[in-house]
Amino acid sequence: RINGERLWASLMELAKIGATPKGGVKRLALTDLDKEGRDLVVGWGRQAGMSITVDQIGNVFMRREGRNPALAPIMTGSHIDTQPTGGKFDGNYGVLAGLEVVRTLNDQGIETEAAVEVAFWTNEEGSRFVPVMMGSGVFCGAFSLETAYAAKDTEGKSVRDELARIGYMGEQVPGQHPIGAYFETHIEQGPVLEDADKVIGVVPAVMGLSWYDCVVTGMEAHAGPTPMGLRKDALQVSTYIMQEVVKIANRYPPYGRGTVGMVQLFPNSRNVIPGEVKFSIDLRNVNDELLNTMHEEMLAFIDKTRSDSGLAMSIERVSYYPPCPFHPDCVDAVREATAKLGYSTMDVVSGAGHDAIYAARLAPAGMIFVPCKDGISHNEIEDARSDHLEAGCNVLLHAMLERAKI
Amino acid sequence: RINGERLWASLMELAKIGATPKGGVKRLALTDLDKEGRDLVVGWGRQAGMSITVDQIGNVFMRREGRNPALAPIMTGSHIDTQPTGGKFDGNYGVLAGLEVVRTLNDQGIETEAAVEVAFWTNEEGSRFVPVMMGSGVFCGAFSLETAYAAKDTEGKSVRDELARIGYMGEQVPGQHPIGAYFETHIEQGPVLEDADKVIGVVPAVMGLSWYDCVVTGMEAHAGPTPMGLRKDALQVSTYIMQEVVKIANRYPPYGRGTVGMVQLFPNSRNVIPGEVKFSIDLRNVNDELLNTMHEEMLAFIDKTRSDSGLAMSIERVSYYPPCPFHPDCVDAVREATAKLGYSTMDVVSGAGHDAIYAARLAPAGMIFVPCKDGISHNEIEDARSDHLEAGCNVLLHAMLERAKI
Ligand SMILES: NC(=O)NCCC(=O)O
Ligand SMILES: NC(=O)NCCC(=O)O
Repeated sequence: RINGERLWASLMELAKIGATPKGGVKRLALTDLDKEGRDLVVGWGRQAGMSITVDQIGNVFMRREGRNPALAPIMTGSHIDTQPTGGKFDGNYGVLAGLEVVRTLNDQGIETEAAVEVAFWTNEEGSRFVPVMMGSGVFCGAFSLETAYAAKDTEGKSVRDELARIGYMGEQVPGQHPIGAYFETHIEQGPVLEDADKVIGVVPAVMGLSWYDCVVTGMEAHAGPTPMGLRKDALQVSTYIMQEVVKIANRYPPYGRGTVGMVQLFPNSRNVIPGEVKFSIDLRNVNDELLNTMHEEMLAFIDKTRSDSGLAMSIERVSYYPPCPFHPDCVDAVREATAKLGYSTMDVVSGAGHDAIYAARLAPAGMIFVPCKDGISHNEIEDARSDHLEAGCNVLLHAMLERAKI
Repeated sequence: RINGERLWASLMELAKIGATPKGGVKRLALTDLDKEGRDLVVGWGRQAGMSITVDQIGNVFMRREGRNPALAPIMTGSHIDTQPTGGKFDGNYGVLAGLEVVRTLNDQGIETEAAVEVAFWTNEEGSRFVPVMMGSGVFCGAFSLETAYAAKDTEGKSVRDELARIGYMGEQVPGQHPIGAYFETHIEQGPVLEDADKVIGVVPAVMGLSWYDCVVTGMEAHAGPTPMGLRKDALQVSTYIMQEVVKIANRYPPYGRGTVGMVQLFPNSRNVIPGEVKFSIDLRNVNDELLNTMHEEMLAFIDKTRSDSGLAMSIERVSYYPPCPFHPDCVDAVREATAKLGYSTMDVVSGAGHDAIYAARLAPAGMIFVPCKDGISHNEIEDARSDHLEAGCNVLLHAMLERAKI
């Protein structure tokens, strides 16, 4: 069993770097604070006897050797960059749980056949630089190192320059690092475990997602003198599409998701009928066929609305991640470790993307969820219970040992 | 008959002051450009032999004496301030049509029993300083001079200081200026005349309006991990209220109007379920009982939606203008002048507020509408035909003469 107090203490120590007055953390990727956080974690890794490798996109791998150097390492990890109004646990928990596993192995003098590695991936959040999950994405070849290097923040600073500046542009070619199996512990970022009063979420898969930008164009006109019958009100027409997003998601339970999160009106004036409305659509499902059906139904509804209303409208898909089922071996390892340890548990499909979906392209992968308070994340009030974090870390220990072999 | 070419030439001359590249005018109230416009119009008034009075809120009255100084003057007017992206005709037409009437009387050597006056009112648009229709509002006692003086623009400059700075803070106490009858010519700012292919709109009344701010509060949460059934999506709930605004208006034709023009989401992020939505509601009708019924139905729908959804919501009325029926004598004078001149005509209820609604509190008042292209106003592409403007001015001439007596 791992040391829950030590894990909590490390989480609180790391959370001091970039701490916000409201109890959250602001430690954006490749800032001075990110460097400080990286240095702290790397220092802890060295203290735990691990060797450090940094690759060209700044992913850091901390290694505890196994008996058999020919075996690919059993890896765990996550990220330590945060949202601008982020919390203490998102990402950070996954990294420090890995560190706690190694500390525990050291305490107990346990040797493993395969090496054990703890990774943290660069710029998972995508708040400062797009795309999200940058480090793991480059690692698995989803996009190129050059694409990632060229990404700029709002001040025009590039990933390449910022990586070099904070001293985390390593030598290793991304992806030239073997992985035997990959596990990631994470707070759920949703309310399912808390709602069901379970401690451990076994994650069989991560949902696929489609992101769209939709624009409806009517005719702006004065709200008083324009009779109802002569209007081309872009907002009114948009509301039916917004509602359909939710109806489509509800037609494909339990994993259908549909969200309109961003809306912008033009000219956005109290006594002017909106001439144009732009809004985002986020559709998700764990089954790619169903996600595709949702996609088709969305397009069909927009076509129907266009011809019914006579208004111009466009929809563009701006992102797509296919669903990512995790490897049965890793899912089973998590399930069995949980059973052995006696924690209450349920399967929780991840609704959010994680570095593990990219790692899963190269090696068997799996995830372990623990509850977070009210399901809230990406928020300074993000919170989690130390006994839950301890439980997740114990499950990680046993799942990794099952794969690394004692 | 008035001189349509001279009217058009004056409109184009005034439109040069604050002309925008897209063919519109930006001449905000009490700016240097407003002073320049005022000086030009006052100069034209003097050239036409009129005497000038300025009151303490900067309303300007240009007077052509009548034979009988005991009679209150027959007044016409409007405003020469514009929207930030305004057109050449909104307001300006009403003032220069009045000037053209006087020029025509001079040309023809026509004397009137009552004096004829041309007014322009300060800050009708309300773009720089709130409230709208400020000059006519102070004049009729709708709010105090002190309230108007204290109004500040976004840079903190006050109406009092700006009036003094441009030299248009007069001596006359607002309202201490008799009016025998008031007429205002204006572009329709809506599509009704153009749609019906009529030249002159006889305006029996101006609609009343109620403005509201509505706030719906749910719970912001991650769009992926949050199941549909556990969401408190403030936008989805808001869309039903937005649709109801239009349904309510459609239940009270032909003058019911319902518009949501302004919407703001928090946090307005693609993968976050909106936690809060603020939006405006604009309800109008020409009948105050119907407007009140619409108001009650709106509140009842919000109560129902609150209890159905369990989300918190608030609605606050931020403005209310009662409907303003014009005086039968003035409406008839416009109708008869139109008939005599042989223009195609229809009644058009004004959906937008005008200085005439405040003048109507002190004297019999009426309005004359002419078509504007595509019903578009408050826009740099605002346009109107010179023959239509000429027709409206002819109607004004004859309606005023009917009241002022030759
Ligand atoms: N974990 C996370 O917030 N990923 C960002 C992409 C998503 O919305 O799932
Ligand atoms: N004419 C005009 O736009 N007035 C402003 C108030 C309104 O929306 O009616």
